[in-house]
Amino acid sequence: MSIKADWIAVDWGTSSLRAWAMNADGQDLETASSDQGMGQLLPSEFESVLCALIAPWLADNIQTNVIACGMVGARQGWVEAPYEPAPCKPLSTMTKAPTNDSRLNVQIIAGVSQAQPADVMRGEETQIAGFQKLNPNWDGVICLPGTHTKWVQMSAGEIVSFQTFMTGEIFALLSTASVLRHSVSSDAWDQPTFDQAVDEAMSRPEAIAARLFGLRAGSLLNNMPANIAKSRLSGLLIGAELAASKPYWLGQPLAIIGPKSMSEGYATALAAQHVPITRTDTAQMTLAGLKAAYTDWKETL
Amino acid sequence: MSIKADWIAVDWGTSSLRAWAMNADGQDLETASSDQGMGQLLPSEFESVLCALIAPWLADNIQTNVIACGMVGARQGWVEAPYEPAPCKPLSTMTKAPTNDSRLNVQIIAGVSQAQPADVMRGEETQIAGFQKLNPNWDGVICLPGTHTKWVQMSAGEIVSFQTFMTGEIFALLSTASVLRHSVSSDAWDQPTFDQAVDEAMSRPEAIAARLFGLRAGSLLNNMPANIAKSRLSGLLIGAELAASKPYWLGQPLAIIGPKSMSEGYATALAAQHVPITRTDTAQMTLAGLKAAYTDWKETL
Repeated sequence: MSIKADWIAVDWGTSSLRAWAMNADGQDLETASSDQGMGQLLPSEFESVLCALIAPWLADNIQTNVIACGMVGARQGWVEAPYEPAPCKPLSTMTKAPTNDSRLNVQIIAGVSQAQPADVMRGEETQIAGFQKLNPNWDGVICLPGTHTKWVQMSAGEIVSFQTFMTGEIFALLSTASVLRHSVSSDAWDQPTFDQAVDEAMSRPEAIAARLFGLRAGSLLNNMPANIAKSRLSGLLIGAELAASKPYWLGQPLAIIGPKSMSEGYATALAAQHVPITRTDTAQMTLAGLKAAYTDWKETL
Repeated sequence: MSIKADWIAVDWGTSSLRAWAMNADGQDLETASSDQGMGQLLPSEFESVLCALIAPWLADNIQTNVIACGMVGARQGWVEAPYEPAPCKPLSTMTKAPTNDSRLNVQIIAGVSQAQPADVMRGEETQIAGFQKLNPNWDGVICLPGTHTKWVQMSAGEIVSFQTFMTGEIFALLSTASVLRHSVSSDAWDQPTFDQAVDEAMSRPEAIAARLFGLRAGSLLNNMPANIAKSRLSGLLIGAELAASKPYWLGQPLAIIGPKSMSEGYATALAAQHVPITRTDTAQMTLAGLKAAYTDWKETL
């Protein structure tokens, strides 16, 4: 016989969906996931996809609360959960998603926006809230590496300002869809090459545009190995980001929240700049943030 | 009855193929083109694709010379036409392509390479040779906008050094395959926005990485029109290229060889920097270069 959830935590991003069955003490009893991300669903499809995943945890004739974060709350998602303008606490309002199944009460966490320079986040605010819960009274900067890496200045429990970089998406496009794909296809890594490329890009970020095609030419003319070209591409792009995000990380306590594969490059590059770094686990921060959101929400009832 | 060619000029790039039927006086009598670029062909397929295009111009029992430039001479092309290392004249050796049809003698023009920093060109050397033919004794810098824009320093008839930028390919990837595609889909243009973005990128090229996602956020939060976002994206990327290519264009006579759609942005941005510019037509330069190559080659027979 399967377990029943007191409530359900959901992280629903562009490309994946993950749910946790929670008990009344805030313990996660079981987890389930799917690749049915928001990016491939119509608004009308979210309810049935979620139901298929969490049905075993639902009790008959009882309404179970579901707290969800991520792109599920985007304009093209289940229902738009409007952005809270920064400066603000990471968790603010929730938006109820329309449902037909009476066993469900789905609440979606608002994203955060910034007017000037224009910027938005959705999902990261929940990870930040989780980090705050586990590290009370922490002031400093949080870096959340990903397809769109976020740099977030925190003070007195609020998101003061933030900045998004497309480095992850640009790396993916260049290494899979550009002429460089022929030269960087490798699963191996070369740390000294990465380190040197970060240095190079940080000291002369304006020259990056002139460096990229050199990876293709280097492989054509000098048989530059693919792991070297890939490590150099990653180093150049992350170095350019660190040059541009310097006002965020220079002289600040820094926490990194992200999957290991995405965070490793940032962590080693920043360590080389003598930045003291706290590294954390994304899933743990997300779950802690969803729990904090659930607690806040219950208090408002 | 169709015309017969004395010889045939061919420009065979990654995505297209164009041929001209030439008479003995170097006049082009007719032209034909196809979208069967090198990128989609196996080495064994080039001959039949070319024959299908130019068959009407071939006389029976006579061998017709075909002079070809472009990616047809790449390692994955019809036959590899090895790079000539710079500094060198734009036209150097030719490589004979293997053929079964006895009516064909196909010669492919060598590309040009540079050892340090590693760089290559293939096709542009022919356009440069055409420009030289039409502008004898011209010294200065040639900019060839395209998917991979080239900046080429010319002196005393030789390619002294050159530098490739992936700006065109990056613009295409960001505007069709990244999250920005939702925000920049427009056929319209806004010149003041472009000009301002070029200025911004040239004065702070290190900040570009921080500007790109702002196009998406600007459209989500402030309904930034798509033509504005697109013009700004183009301006930021071209501005970054001009910041990095400054050693090429600063204080030099400059010629631009490229299709109008690709060249317009460079021309207006450089004009704003008070760079004196000669603009030319790509097809005309290519044909003049192929004619120069044919003349050179006949002299060596």
